[in-house]
Amino acid sequence: MENFRYCSPTKYIFGRDMEKETGKEAAAIGAKKVLIVYGGGSAVRSGLLDRVCESLRNSSIEFVSLGGVQPNPVDGAVRKGIEICRSESVDTIIAVGGGSVIDTAKAIALGVPYSGDFWDFYSGKAIAKEALPVGVVLTIPAAGSEGSGNSVITLESEKIKISLRTDFVLRPKFAIMNPELTVTLPAYQTASGIADMMAHIMERYFTPTENVEITDRVSEGILKAIIEEAPKVMSNPQDYQARANIMWSGTLAHNGICGTGRKEDWASHAIEHEISAMYNVTHGAGLAVIFPAWMTFMAKRNPGKIAQYARRVFDVKETNDEAAALEGIDCLKAFFGSIGLPVTFAELGIANPDISEMVRRLHINKGEVIGGYLPLRAADTTEIYRLAL
Amino acid sequence: MENFRYCSPTKYIFGRDMEKETGKEAAAIGAKKVLIVYGGGSAVRSGLLDRVCESLRNSSIEFVSLGGVQPNPVDGAVRKGIEICRSESVDTIIAVGGGSVIDTAKAIALGVPYSGDFWDFYSGKAIAKEALPVGVVLTIPAAGSEGSGNSVITLESEKIKISLRTDFVLRPKFAIMNPELTVTLPAYQTASGIADMMAHIMERYFTPTENVEITDRVSEGILKAIIEEAPKVMSNPQDYQARANIMWSGTLAHNGICGTGRKEDWASHAIEHEISAMYNVTHGAGLAVIFPAWMTFMAKRNPGKIAQYARRVFDVKETNDEAAALEGIDCLKAFFGSIGLPVTFAELGIANPDISEMVRRLHINKGEVIGGYLPLRAADTTEIYRLAL
Repeated sequence: MENFRYCSPTKYIFGRDMEKETGKEAAAIGAKKVLIVYGGGSAVRSGLLDRVCESLRNSSIEFVSLGGVQPNPVDGAVRKGIEICRSESVDTIIAVGGGSVIDTAKAIALGVPYSGDFWDFYSGKAIAKEALPVGVVLTIPAAGSEGSGNSVITLESEKIKISLRTDFVLRPKFAIMNPELTVTLPAYQTASGIADMMAHIMERYFTPTENVEITDRVSEGILKAIIEEAPKVMSNPQDYQARANIMWSGTLAHNGICGTGRKEDWASHAIEHEISAMYNVTHGAGLAVIFPAWMTFMAKRNPGKIAQYARRVFDVKETNDEAAALEGIDCLKAFFGSIGLPVTFAELGIANPDISEMVRRLHINKGEVIGGYLPLRAADTTEIYRLAL
Repeated sequence: MENFRYCSPTKYIFGRDMEKETGKEAAAIGAKKVLIVYGGGSAVRSGLLDRVCESLRNSSIEFVSLGGVQPNPVDGAVRKGIEICRSESVDTIIAVGGGSVIDTAKAIALGVPYSGDFWDFYSGKAIAKEALPVGVVLTIPAAGSEGSGNSVITLESEKIKISLRTDFVLRPKFAIMNPELTVTLPAYQTASGIADMMAHIMERYFTPTENVEITDRVSEGILKAIIEEAPKVMSNPQDYQARANIMWSGTLAHNGICGTGRKEDWASHAIEHEISAMYNVTHGAGLAVIFPAWMTFMAKRNPGKIAQYARRVFDVKETNDEAAALEGIDCLKAFFGSIGLPVTFAELGIANPDISEMVRRLHINKGEVIGGYLPLRAADTTEIYRLAL
């Protein structure tokens, strides 16, 4: 176990009807004027946005709004949000949506008090030290952004997708999580969210750090819960209890608890980000393609932890590590397939991916060497993309 | 899953030498003058107290101190601490020790800004709304008080031991956790701490709430990690890695994450509190006696969750629920025995416990009906005490 610092101060308000508490929670953190950030029309059509606005009104909180945030969110919406906040003297941002909306809200929160361009934080030119407070009303369990200090934004002009990671600054002050809001999610989006949350755990689980039994066991536990609950939400989207289990799993997957005391990997996320930046695929679906390929690459070179994963998460009985690892990867692929996710580029709808271009961009954006479980160079990431064909 | 609110804002600073950061962390929460609360002489003899004081001096923080806090801490030390804080204008309390010291520090923190008697909060006459900030330098992994909002104090004149539970007010602002500080703990204290942390999980795991797969799996994961690491610390007390795993497990066991979305039980703690209040036994050792007895009582009446525990935590293969439950209880007793803990009153050194007096006091203190898994009345708690003979 390595030394660590960990603080997850987000207040979670979880359960039916909880969006009605938005105003009360916003008032508790001192909000006077709020920017509501949301995505497409579903938050409008479902009446959720109305309920959030009414709750703010009931707490005498003024608000303006910014809709239309797209999946794989881009810098344009962030800049627009920063302008609105400045001209309207907004003091608090509330994201009503999933990861893209929350990440946009976080980027806006960071940009408002900063005199330069908000992208400086993502490009590494500036260090995030302050931000407006962010609250969340979560509608898509996937990205885990409701409990994380992270934000992923794409610079549209360059098609660069960068994940900014902060320890505390970007953690939401509160996250309202009503599983009922997720029962209308399309099946593909539900499944992609499941892959995303599993990937968040696995990026931390596949570590070179030894003696992290407690963090391993917690991680395996969350994975097992997801694998058990996923078929229930897929077969019966109205199953509140299964939706609730999946929703809370997505938060625990990415609030950092699965990373305590160890190095993390994050190569698969970096490798996938190039797919979604170039082909605009759903992030979780891209991960369902890349993660098994990454694991297959590792099964030959460093099978130990992949074998442990296979045995503890999928109850693989095989005693040889490499064989157990490969069996575990088959189980994972079968699981992804069973919830309707692609596990190859072809299934993802990309017949001839431009691997050399993705590899080139990957290492320009993320450096010559990526990953923590084993360091990966261009030849390695090329092989991983190929293993996903 | 039930609706819930959850917020665990404590900042954990975990690893070797981290006590040297006490001053920095105290300064970050605005400390100008600190009361250091500690227990017996071991914090003095080991030099830990000196290192903490030096760290405070380096951050230009003044301090006074209060030592001599005993296990099963009593109101006297709390009153003394409140007096010191008021006369010395202390603004922050730092506990250097285990659960007894931390719980005393929390009680002092609550009492200082309150005009009445601090016991009002424990007796239920007053609701905890504010307290001085508390920081922790943890030396005993057991009570989980470093991450909880709880405090257990005994009113010495009445021998009443009461656990005060707050959502946020009493959660420490920071907890410094250096596993090296725990390598000198006596074996019995180490083992009692392990029983205490397991009990904290099990009090939440044995619930009437259904469909809490995610919380179940996380709980089972922490239990499995403890059961795997415990023999390592018992056979080699110097094993830093095993100590680190146990230390972090103790925090996760009691920071509330294992209780999210469900009713909790806490009957075994209440039943045990009467033993330690009357016979002054180590709390964890008392729990090692009572928990198997409570489970045996339940195995006949409501075996489902006990059987799941047996199968998932101890890999019991038995398909009949009651039989599986009983087999799991045997595994738990064998585990406690293997780390040197008692599992009967006799082994605890109490040849003829005054069961009727404990039952009488239990239901006076905690009400006619206790527990969440199944409600327990005097006839039931009598049987549970008897099952522990």
